[in-house]
Amino acid sequence: MNDGFLLNERLASGSTDIGCHGICRVLLKNQAHFPWLLLVPMVPPEITELHHLSDAQYTAVSDSIRVFSHWMEHAMHAEKVNVAAIGNQVRQLHIHIVGRNSQDIAWPGVVWSFPEKMPYADVEHERIKKLLRVVIDGQG
Amino acid sequence: MNDGFLLNERLASGSTDIGCHGICRVLLKNQAHFPWLLLVPMVPPEITELHHLSDAQYTAVSDSIRVFSHWMEHAMHAEKVNVAAIGNQVRQLHIHIVGRNSQDIAWPGVVWSFPEKMPYADVEHERIKKLLRVVIDGQG
Repeated sequence: MNDGFLLNERLASGSTDIGCHGICRVLLKNQAHFPWLLLVPMVPPEITELHHLSDAQYTAVSDSIRVFSHWMEHAMHAEKVNVAAIGNQVRQLHIHIVGRNSQDIAWPGVVWSFPEKMPYADVEHERIKKLLRVVIDGQG
Repeated sequence: MNDGFLLNERLASGSTDIGCHGICRVLLKNQAHFPWLLLVPMVPPEITELHHLSDAQYTAVSDSIRVFSHWMEHAMHAEKVNVAAIGNQVRQLHIHIVGRNSQDIAWPGVVWSFPEKMPYADVEHERIKKLLRVVIDGQG
């Protein structure tokens, strides 16, 4: 499935690759303002839209979206989960899963137009990575 | 399924309700800058997140997302389809499907932070509604 798969440099540069879930790589953005995951399906580069995925791929990606949305609500205590496939700037198919809170700095606006970046403190970064690995290591 | 379902006033006010697809109402936003649909699953109001849907509901909504994303690419000639469940301001679960083009006024930014509204001319509005009805009337 991931033969020849290359993660886009822009997606990779601001995030940490935590591992695989289903057919997706799971990246944690280094943005302490909001817990923010990117799911990157390991599919050929010409597949730039969710609806270009095959039935089996679409089902697998939808399942991963659901699993990490649930994680965002329960492990990250998100009040609202924002899920999006945009890709206007980076065409490699990727899905954003962002945990939002009415106290967060961009609320109720969307994170994609919020310019300020804040890297995680090491301890918090490690804590979240561990919580993600519970999901990734626990897949059936 | 839609017993007691009430469409949120803010969702209804800026859009036209075209009909039903699967378990979703299909709304066309009156925003001529970008073809923009809202899919509103007819589920109880406490279900505010995609991952709160039951397996059957999630599958039905995922299928509708795929169908209208395909429509956006082929009937609306979108270069890129933006799909998102946000809901920070209106909690009734709704999914945005937006057709984007590198010539559009907000490109490559996201539509949710673009403030300018432009209503459709009547002829164009009718044309798009007809194209949507082809999909809605054609469901199995």
